[in-house]
Amino acid sequence: MTNKVCNQHFREKNKDRARLLIKCPDQPGIVSKVSTFLMNYGANIIESSQYSADPEGGNFFIRMEFSCPNLLNRRTEIEQSFQEIAEIFYMEFEFRYVSDIKKTAIFVSKELHCLMELLWEWQNGDLMFDIGCIISNYENAEQLAKSVNIPFYYIPANKEIRAEVEEKQIKLLKEHEIELIILARYMQILTPNFVSQYPNQIINIHHSFLPAFIGARPYERAYERGVKLIGATSHFVTNDLDEGPIIEQGVERVSHHDKVEDMKRIGRNIERSVLARAVKWHLQDRVIVDGNKTIVF
Amino acid sequence: MTNKVCNQHFREKNKDRARLLIKCPDQPGIVSKVSTFLMNYGANIIESSQYSADPEGGNFFIRMEFSCPNLLNRRTEIEQSFQEIAEIFYMEFEFRYVSDIKKTAIFVSKELHCLMELLWEWQNGDLMFDIGCIISNYENAEQLAKSVNIPFYYIPANKEIRAEVEEKQIKLLKEHEIELIILARYMQILTPNFVSQYPNQIINIHHSFLPAFIGARPYERAYERGVKLIGATSHFVTNDLDEGPIIEQGVERVSHHDKVEDMKRIGRNIERSVLARAVKWHLQDRVIVDGNKTIVF
Amino acid sequence: MTNKVCNQHFREKNKDRARLLIKCPDQPGIVSKVSTFLMNYGANIIESSQYSADPEGGNFFIRMEFSCPNLLNRRTEIEQSFQEIAEIFYMEFEFRYVSDIKKTAIFVSKELHCLMELLWEWQNGDLMFDIGCIISNYENAEQLAKSVNIPFYYIPANKEIRAEVEEKQIKLLKEHEIELIILARYMQILTPNFVSQYPNQIINIHHSFLPAFIGARPYERAYERGVKLIGATSHFVTNDLDEGPIIEQGVERVSHHDKVEDMKRIGRNIERSVLARAVKWHLQDRVIVDGNKTIVF
Amino acid sequence: MTNKVCNQHFREKNKDRARLLIKCPDQPGIVSKVSTFLMNYGANIIESSQYSADPEGGNFFIRMEFSCPNLLNRRTEIEQSFQEIAEIFYMEFEFRYVSDIKKTAIFVSKELHCLMELLWEWQNGDLMFDIGCIISNYENAEQLAKSVNIPFYYIPANKEIRAEVEEKQIKLLKEHEIELIILARYMQILTPNFVSQYPNQIINIHHSFLPAFIGARPYERAYERGVKLIGATSHFVTNDLDEGPIIEQGVERVSHHDKVEDMKRIGRNIERSVLARAVKWHLQDRVIVDGNKTIVF
Repeated sequence: MTNKVCNQHFREKNKDRARLLIKCPDQPGIVSKVSTFLMNYGANIIESSQYSADPEGGNFFIRMEFSCPNLLNRRTEIEQSFQEIAEIFYMEFEFRYVSDIKKTAIFVSKELHCLMELLWEWQNGDLMFDIGCIISNYENAEQLAKSVNIPFYYIPANKEIRAEVEEKQIKLLKEHEIELIILARYMQILTPNFVSQYPNQIINIHHSFLPAFIGARPYERAYERGVKLIGATSHFVTNDLDEGPIIEQGVERVSHHDKVEDMKRIGRNIERSVLARAVKWHLQDRVIVDGNKTIVF
Repeated sequence: MTNKVCNQHFREKNKDRARLLIKCPDQPGIVSKVSTFLMNYGANIIESSQYSADPEGGNFFIRMEFSCPNLLNRRTEIEQSFQEIAEIFYMEFEFRYVSDIKKTAIFVSKELHCLMELLWEWQNGDLMFDIGCIISNYENAEQLAKSVNIPFYYIPANKEIRAEVEEKQIKLLKEHEIELIILARYMQILTPNFVSQYPNQIINIHHSFLPAFIGARPYERAYERGVKLIGATSHFVTNDLDEGPIIEQGVERVSHHDKVEDMKRIGRNIERSVLARAVKWHLQDRVIVDGNKTIVF
Repeated sequence: MTNKVCNQHFREKNKDRARLLIKCPDQPGIVSKVSTFLMNYGANIIESSQYSADPEGGNFFIRMEFSCPNLLNRRTEIEQSFQEIAEIFYMEFEFRYVSDIKKTAIFVSKELHCLMELLWEWQNGDLMFDIGCIISNYENAEQLAKSVNIPFYYIPANKEIRAEVEEKQIKLLKEHEIELIILARYMQILTPNFVSQYPNQIINIHHSFLPAFIGARPYERAYERGVKLIGATSHFVTNDLDEGPIIEQGVERVSHHDKVEDMKRIGRNIERSVLARAVKWHLQDRVIVDGNKTIVF
Repeated sequence: MTNKVCNQHFREKNKDRARLLIKCPDQPGIVSKVSTFLMNYGANIIESSQYSADPEGGNFFIRMEFSCPNLLNRRTEIEQSFQEIAEIFYMEFEFRYVSDIKKTAIFVSKELHCLMELLWEWQNGDLMFDIGCIISNYENAEQLAKSVNIPFYYIPANKEIRAEVEEKQIKLLKEHEIELIILARYMQILTPNFVSQYPNQIINIHHSFLPAFIGARPYERAYERGVKLIGATSHFVTNDLDEGPIIEQGVERVSHHDKVEDMKRIGRNIERSVLARAVKWHLQDRVIVDGNKTIVF
C-alpha cells in the first residue's frame, strides 16, 4: 500500500473524528456546556483530558476527542455556533480534524538518524503526517528521500548567507503549504523572522537533557563534566535558543567507559525516540503551549 | 504535628472534595449529563479522566474529581438525585468523599521493608490513610508499630489453623472498621471466605513481574532462569492465587553477578515502591476494576 | 564509504586486537598466569572482566581484550603455546580476533522492524558484522535487501515442509560460510537438526519478557492479563522453545488505554533495541553461555 | 542481632578480604605483575575491574578484590613489599581491608528522608558502615537517632557563625574518628577549610540532575522551566559548589500535572535512592576520583 493510498484510507476512516482544544479562565460549568454542545450535534466523546493550572483562579485547559456523524459537512456550522460558548467563557479554542493530515517539512543536516526514524515510523503508520519535503544543507539525504518519493531540496547554509537561505526555505514551505517543521538534527540557527512565521509549529531535537548543556557541543561537555546520564530534549523553537517549551525528554545511563563517541552513539538512539514521541503527540493534537511550558494530554 | 491532627487538618481542607466513579455502556451524552448535574450543584470539576473500552458498544468509565460548596451536608441529597441519571444510562456509580480517609489494616510477616515504606510515606503525608491496625504472624514488627502508636496484633498462622486465624483477623478488621487491607509481604494464603468479604479491597505485593514466576520462590526461579530483569507486581487479591487484577508493576536490571540474595535485596526496593504507588492510587480512588484488569486513572 | 571499504578499514585498524575467553574451575593464580603469558608476547590488556560463579569451588570466567603487536602473524604460535596453561588449569578457551568480522545471516518473516534496525546500526558502524545473506519466508524484504546490496533468498516455509526448507537454508548458510544466525522476527520453529548445527550461534528475539507469555501470541495474552509492563527478550536458540539462555531483556510501560495493536507497536520498539543490543554484545564476544544462562561481560 | 554484633560478624567473615586500588600510566605488564604478586601471597582474585583512559598514553586504573589467607597479620608486610612494583610502574595505590568498616558521620538538616533511607539500609545490612554520629542544624532528627542508639549532636548553623560551627563539627569528627561524611540533605555550605580536611571523603546529594539547576531551589526552577524529567545527583564535595565529581544520578518523569510540591515529593524518592547507591559503592571501594570525574568499578 503506497503512502498516498494509506493517507486516503486514514482520512476516510477518520472523517467523523475531531479534537476540540480549549484554554480559558477556570470556572464551574465549562465541561457541562462544552459536552452538552457536542451532544447536541450527536457527538460521542472518545477521549477527554483536562488540566486546571490552579483551581482557584488559574487557566483551564481541555482536549476532547470526539466522533460526530457527518462531521466534515458541518465544520463551519459547528465552529460558528461554538463561538457563542467561547464568548461566555472567554475561551481560546480550536477544532482540529483528524482527517486533516498535517503537511510537514523535515529539515536535516549531516546526521540522518532522526530523519530515518521519522520516515520509518511514517511508513509503519505510527506517525500520521504528510511529508511535503525534506530540506538539507547537506546532500547526503537525497538518496533516502528519493527512495520514499519525497521532494528533496539541497540548500547550502551558513551564518553569512542565513537571510537568503531562509528566503529560499520559506518559499518552499509556502509552496508545499507546510504546517509543521521538524528540525531533525538541523544544525543551523533560525532567525526571528523565520521563527515568527511558524509559531509553535517548529519542533526541534536538542542533544542534551535541557537545561543542562544548553548550546553547542553537549556530548563533549557532558563527557568533560563526568555525568552518569545523558539525554535529549524535544521542544518548540522560539527565539530564545534552546529555551522553547519542552515537549519531551529522555535519558540513558553512561559510565566512565563511554568516550565522547560512545555518548554520541547512545545519544542518537535517545534523540530519535524522543523526537518521534514529541512529533507523534503533536500530530495527535495533544500538545498545548502554555507560556514557556507544554501541557501534553 | 501528630497524625491525628494531620488527618483532621486534611479532612477540613478537603471537606468539599469528592470523586465520582462511573461505569456504564458507552453512548453519547454521558459527560454532558453528568457534568451538567454537577454544575447545577455549583461544583467545579478539578480533574476528569475517562476511558472507552470500545467506542462502538463497549463500556465507558469515568472518574471526576470535583469541589462542591457545602458538600458534606448535601451528600444524601446529591447521591439520591444522581440516581435518576444513573438509571437512564444503566450506570454503576459511586461517590467517594476525600475527607473519608480510608481505614486500613496492614498485614505483614517476617520481612518489614514494605511496612516500613508505607509507614514512612504515611508520616510524610504522601499516603493519606488511617492505619487502624497492623497484623502479623511474626512478632518482629511490634516495636515498629508501637513507635508510631498503631495497634499491633500478633496472630501466629499456618496452613493447619487457617480457619481460626482468619476468624480472629476478621473480628479485628470489623472492630477497627477496616475498608482496605494491604498485604505488605504477608506470606500466608487467604481463604475464599476471607477474600469474599473484602472484594477489591485487598491489595497484595507479589515479588515477581507477573505472570512470570507465579507462586512461590520467585527470586530463586528468576535466578535459575537467568533473567536480566526482576520485578514486582501489586494486585487485588482474588481467589485465583496471583491472578487478581494488576494495579502496578516495576522492574530493575540484574546481571550474572547477582546471586539470589542480591536479587532479593534489589527486589525489596522494587516491592516497596510498587506497593506504595498502588496503594496511593487506590487511596485516591484512581483504580477501577474491570473484569480481571484495572483501569488506573 | 561503502560497507566493504568500511570493513576493510575496520580490519586494518583492529589487526592487532583480540579477545581471550576462558572458562575453568576457580583457583588462585589464573589471572597471574594468563596476564604474564600475554605480557610475554608484548600484549597490552585493554579491557578485562571476570566472574567467579562461586569463589569456593565454582567456575571462573574471564574475558580479556588485548592489543598485541604483529598479532595476526603469530596467531597459531600464540594459540599453541597457550595450550600449556590451559592444561594446567583445565581451561576451555578461545581466542577471537577482532579483525575476523563475523559472517552473519538474518532470518526474517513479514515484520521488518528488527531487520531495519540491524541494517541501520550496521550502516552507522554500530554493529560490526558482515551480512552474508537475508533469508525470508516472505517476499517483502527483498527491496530493502537489494537497496543495501545484500543477497536475499525467498524460501516459503510452513510446518509441513520444514525439513526441505531447512535443507535449503543450511545449504545457503554453508555457501555463505555463516557463523551467526539472527532470527529477526522469523516466525518459524527450527528443528533440533538445524539448531544442533549452530550451537550458541543462533540469536532470537521473543516478543515478551520471558518467562512470561512463553509461546505464541504474547501481546494478545499480555493484553488479556492486564499487565502494566510489556517487554522483549533476546536469547540463544536451543531445542527447548523460548527456553534458551537469555542475553538481554527490555520493558516499557503500558496502560489500560493500550489495546493489542498499541502493545504491538510499543513492542516493536522494544524488540528492535533489545535484539540490537544482544547482537552487539555477541559481536564483541561479550556473551558467554554457562548452562542455560549467559554471562555478559 | 544488634548492629555491634552484626559488625563483629561481618569483620570476622571478611577478615581475609581486601581491595587493591591502583592508578598509574598505562603500559603492558601491569596486570601480570600485580596478579603474580597477589598469587605469591596465596591470594585468590574474586573480582577485578580495570579502565584505560586512553590505551595509548593515558592513565590505567584497576580495582582488584581478593581473598588472602592470614591477611590481617600480613598487612604491613604485603603493603611494604608491594612498594617495589609501585615504583616500577609509577603507581598510586591503596590497600583497603573489607573488615575496616568505615566510620561515618551523617549531616542532616530539616528533611529526614535521606537519613531514614541510610539508616534503613544500614539496619538491613545493605550498607555496611559504622555510623559514629549524626549532626544536624535542626533538632527533629534526635528521636530517630536515639531509636537506633547513634549519638546525635544539634549544632545550630547559619552563614554568620559558619567558622565556629565547623570548628565544633570538626572536633566531633575527630573524636569519632570519622573517615566518611555524608551530607544527607544538609543545607549549609561547607568552607574550603572544612572540605580540605576531608578530600574525596564527603558525599553530598544534590536535588537536581546536575549540571541542570546548579545552586538553590532546583525544583522551583525545574517547575518554571517545564522539564519533563527531574533528578538528583550524588557527588563528592569540593570547593566548587555543586561541581564536585559525580558518583551517581537518577531521574523520574514528571508531567504538567506536577506542581513544585509534587516534584519535591517525587524528588525525595530519587534523592534517597541515588544517595544510597553512591554511598554503597563508596563503602565497597568502587569509586575512584580521576580529576573532576569518577570511575565507578
